[in-house]
Amino acid sequence: MSNRTASSLSSWLPILDWGRRYNRDTFVSDGVAALIVTIMLIPQSLAYALLAGLPPEVGLYASVAPLLLYAVFGTSRVLAVGPVAVVSLMTAAAIGEHAIVGTPEYWAIAITLAFLSGAMLTLMGVLRLGFLANFLSHPVISGFISASGLLIAASQVKTLMGVTAEGENFFALVHSLVLHATNTHMLTLTMGILTTAFLFWARKGLKPLLLGLGLKARLADVLTKTGPVLAIAVTTLLTWGLDWQGQGVKIVGTVPQGLPPLTMPVWDMALWKELAIPALLISIVGFVESVSVGQTLAAKRRQRIEPDQELVALGAGNLSAAFTGGFPVTGGFARSVVNFDAGAQTPAAGVFTALGITLASLFLTPALYFLPQATLAATIIVAVLSLVDFGILKRTWAYSKADFVAVLATLGGTLGLGVEAGLVIGVSVSLALFLLRSSRPHIAEVGLVPGTESFRNVLRHAVKVSPALISLRVDESLYFANSRTLEDRINSAVATNPQLKHVVLQCSGINSIDASALESLETIEKRLHDSGVTLHLSEVKGPVMDRLQGTEFLHELSGKVFLTHYQAIQELAPVE
Amino acid sequence: MSNRTASSLSSWLPILDWGRRYNRDTFVSDGVAALIVTIMLIPQSLAYALLAGLPPEVGLYASVAPLLLYAVFGTSRVLAVGPVAVVSLMTAAAIGEHAIVGTPEYWAIAITLAFLSGAMLTLMGVLRLGFLANFLSHPVISGFISASGLLIAASQVKTLMGVTAEGENFFALVHSLVLHATNTHMLTLTMGILTTAFLFWARKGLKPLLLGLGLKARLADVLTKTGPVLAIAVTTLLTWGLDWQGQGVKIVGTVPQGLPPLTMPVWDMALWKELAIPALLISIVGFVESVSVGQTLAAKRRQRIEPDQELVALGAGNLSAAFTGGFPVTGGFARSVVNFDAGAQTPAAGVFTALGITLASLFLTPALYFLPQATLAATIIVAVLSLVDFGILKRTWAYSKADFVAVLATLGGTLGLGVEAGLVIGVSVSLALFLLRSSRPHIAEVGLVPGTESFRNVLRHAVKVSPALISLRVDESLYFANSRTLEDRINSAVATNPQLKHVVLQCSGINSIDASALESLETIEKRLHDSGVTLHLSEVKGPVMDRLQGTEFLHELSGKVFLTHYQAIQELAPVE
Repeated sequence: MSNRTASSLSSWLPILDWGRRYNRDTFVSDGVAALIVTIMLIPQSLAYALLAGLPPEVGLYASVAPLLLYAVFGTSRVLAVGPVAVVSLMTAAAIGEHAIVGTPEYWAIAITLAFLSGAMLTLMGVLRLGFLANFLSHPVISGFISASGLLIAASQVKTLMGVTAEGENFFALVHSLVLHATNTHMLTLTMGILTTAFLFWARKGLKPLLLGLGLKARLADVLTKTGPVLAIAVTTLLTWGLDWQGQGVKIVGTVPQGLPPLTMPVWDMALWKELAIPALLISIVGFVESVSVGQTLAAKRRQRIEPDQELVALGAGNLSAAFTGGFPVTGGFARSVVNFDAGAQTPAAGVFTALGITLASLFLTPALYFLPQATLAATIIVAVLSLVDFGILKRTWAYSKADFVAVLATLGGTLGLGVEAGLVIGVSVSLALFLLRSSRPHIAEVGLVPGTESFRNVLRHAVKVSPALISLRVDESLYFANSRTLEDRINSAVATNPQLKHVVLQCSGINSIDASALESLETIEKRLHDSGVTLHLSEVKGPVMDRLQGTEFLHELSGKVFLTHYQAIQELAPVE
Repeated sequence: MSNRTASSLSSWLPILDWGRRYNRDTFVSDGVAALIVTIMLIPQSLAYALLAGLPPEVGLYASVAPLLLYAVFGTSRVLAVGPVAVVSLMTAAAIGEHAIVGTPEYWAIAITLAFLSGAMLTLMGVLRLGFLANFLSHPVISGFISASGLLIAASQVKTLMGVTAEGENFFALVHSLVLHATNTHMLTLTMGILTTAFLFWARKGLKPLLLGLGLKARLADVLTKTGPVLAIAVTTLLTWGLDWQGQGVKIVGTVPQGLPPLTMPVWDMALWKELAIPALLISIVGFVESVSVGQTLAAKRRQRIEPDQELVALGAGNLSAAFTGGFPVTGGFARSVVNFDAGAQTPAAGVFTALGITLASLFLTPALYFLPQATLAATIIVAVLSLVDFGILKRTWAYSKADFVAVLATLGGTLGLGVEAGLVIGVSVSLALFLLRSSRPHIAEVGLVPGTESFRNVLRHAVKVSPALISLRVDESLYFANSRTLEDRINSAVATNPQLKHVVLQCSGINSIDASALESLETIEKRLHDSGVTLHLSEVKGPVMDRLQGTEFLHELSGKVFLTHYQAIQELAPVE
């Protein structure tokens, strides 16, 4: 029996469930995990705020309240909620049309976007609309994430080069970078490249090195995650010590100290209307990312998450972000995996992490004054390039051309037209291709395999058929988009076989018949009747037969409904 | 072998096929049919032109060239092409936004609309896109036609009452009629109601009466169709003889004599862009109406029509309408049935009908001067009310709630928001409901029926199961929108059955597996593996297995693929 049926209150407030069983062991595990995640989150939060076009401290603000709210409402034990790369990029794209980066209006719109996204997520959760996320196919998500990774990396390269570059899409951005290449600030670039190289190496090479030095596996794991913090510390110290700022290296500068502020979204219906679509897309992408991370981690411990309750938890998280100076957040992949690996047992780990981030924003921010922006750019580039996976193109090409087209459309749309257009194009193309496929069902003429009672495609096998009878097997549920194909197939069979007396539809692949298909069957029956041919059915599934009972079609069917196709052939036109 | 393969030239020019075999018998049959259709078409053409907001003679023009072109390119032997009610209504709706009824601009836009529609239809035919019409489900078409019938009837009631009334939708129109009721012109209304009553009676009561008088069935049939012509003759004579015009009855007035004029569409890209969507919708609705009529009639004589070639023929017809002063046309239901019943053998009947209409527009138009507009309104009302079928609501309610919702959305959308919005809403809703249904597949846990080798739903039947093994049957092809449902179902099974060792998917209802579903299967396999459970498949269909061969999933599958589900149970966890 699931918890949901056991207690409906604790299904809305999962904290009542795990909170009751909290003890010293879980406290220690959660505390250790929280410490590690906090260290990892500080540079990430700053970097993703900059990526979203916001002041760095906003990233810290967005990492406090959402973690607390998720701890109350969330069903995953280990999900860590906060700013993530793709959602930050989408936030920047959405606000870019309404305000200029760095202005108070820009921040106010980010807060409003978090508010709208939070409201939508909560509403979808209450209405149990979590299934809507299923319409984002894996190829579309994969293409979208890869393209977003490239877009983000390209946007960070200008910071790495110390130049200004702009472009309304990926290709324009790369073109602009090439045009501005002559203005490259060499010190910034050198430091940026070295930092990037170090971070890449830290991901792959640091752990074996630490293990080689005799460290325990768990400690080596944890130290590996501190790569970005190390990079920040070293480059900040160098910039301060060698006065790199004086030589033109751009630094983060003053980051205000203090608790997250109390803020309000902009109450402007016209603005809400314009932000509605971006907010919806951000909500769906955030939800999909969060749920897939949560599900994967939960399964490893034979736990489950409730997608609809996750919507409520993410909604509450985003609403809280809106009232504490943050911007749209979701459950992040990297931080959740770290939290899981570090041994977090309950969402209390999130509460402790929130505490850590609060302490950082109270006391640590002055230490970030000399942090070079290029270091943060390097952190982002390393993080997002791991998201880019062109292998999906090869895999879908080999397995399914329709899926390949969907990936390509999403990739091309996102790189060429931006994140929102890319996502909409991807979903539209994948749905259109699915409809197209299901509208052209595989209809095989089948014949009896000699010496057996089974039937196979006449084009593939040596089978027996009678000129007076045609057996058609439809490998698809019948609905409006494909029912005329069946009509046409049967019309053609009748027009080309003058000796035909019986048509038998083998219905083993038909899982449902909608009203249009039922009318088509009636039309087929009438037309066959007019031509002196009888229509029969065989192997109709139980649920389909339940529906057909009581319809005029079954009542007026001139032929019979046979339990097995073999019985039909034996009775109507034996071939053996 | 079909004609298409026998001769590709005659597949593009079906006239080469039937023209070669033309003889005296077919000539006589076609001639008689043409005479009857011509008599029926004259009032219809005038009436539908008025319905479209055009001068009455335009209806005659639109009934000449399209018939000739269809005779050359069409694949139906009996389809009669010309103005039809629903397309005329859609034409009025499309032009209404750009010009005022009665102006030369209005007519010019009608001509342009015919041109665009013709070009689109031809292009769709050449690109073999006829299958796109399949995405209009029967419930949507039925709801759309019924709502259009009501809209048309309501628009004609004002002419019947002799008042002016306007409304941007059905309800506003009816409201306006009620407000203007006090201005009703009683003579017009009395004549209109009597004419309507006569026409309704002529449909049902005239034939039995004529048969009772001793006429032969065929002749009685033909005379029944002359009801509208009789109504026109009598009311025109009365209006002339009793000077009803002087008493305020509105008449048709001068209808210019002469051949259809040579005209050109407006070459204005901005206008084309605005007309593109209406032209596309008109094309699709016209094509669907035409093809369903053509297919039904062809089947009665064991003939077939080629939908893609029909697109070309209707395209040529509409293009010809654009260059001869006409407006959008299609194959009409009533006229085609009359043509068929009257014995038309080949499209030459259409050529003779075109000749008849030409003669009428050359010599008959002065006789129409005193024709009351209310008589034409009565003809339209009687014609369109036969299209209204609310029975579809009852039938779909009984058979399928999803189809019921689609009908209701189309009806409501068309009546409340107009023909274009209604059609778009209907198609969107029906596609969304189909996707929704397929995204929530029926997944049954099955168990062994004692004493057999077959498996049934554990919730419906007394069957045997083992606590170590769960058998799941998925009654739907797996694709992105439903693959997570399967993940969730299996997660839940694993989380609630601690003794579980094996999951076996019975794949007999799975007709395809897309790349997303394949990834989901991989995820399921990994998660089950992490939980110490083994995944197996059974009864995988041939085409699905072909695809799976060579994928990583099949390679890494820890369990087996069994030919039958019974074999799987026997080997893994026998229950008998």
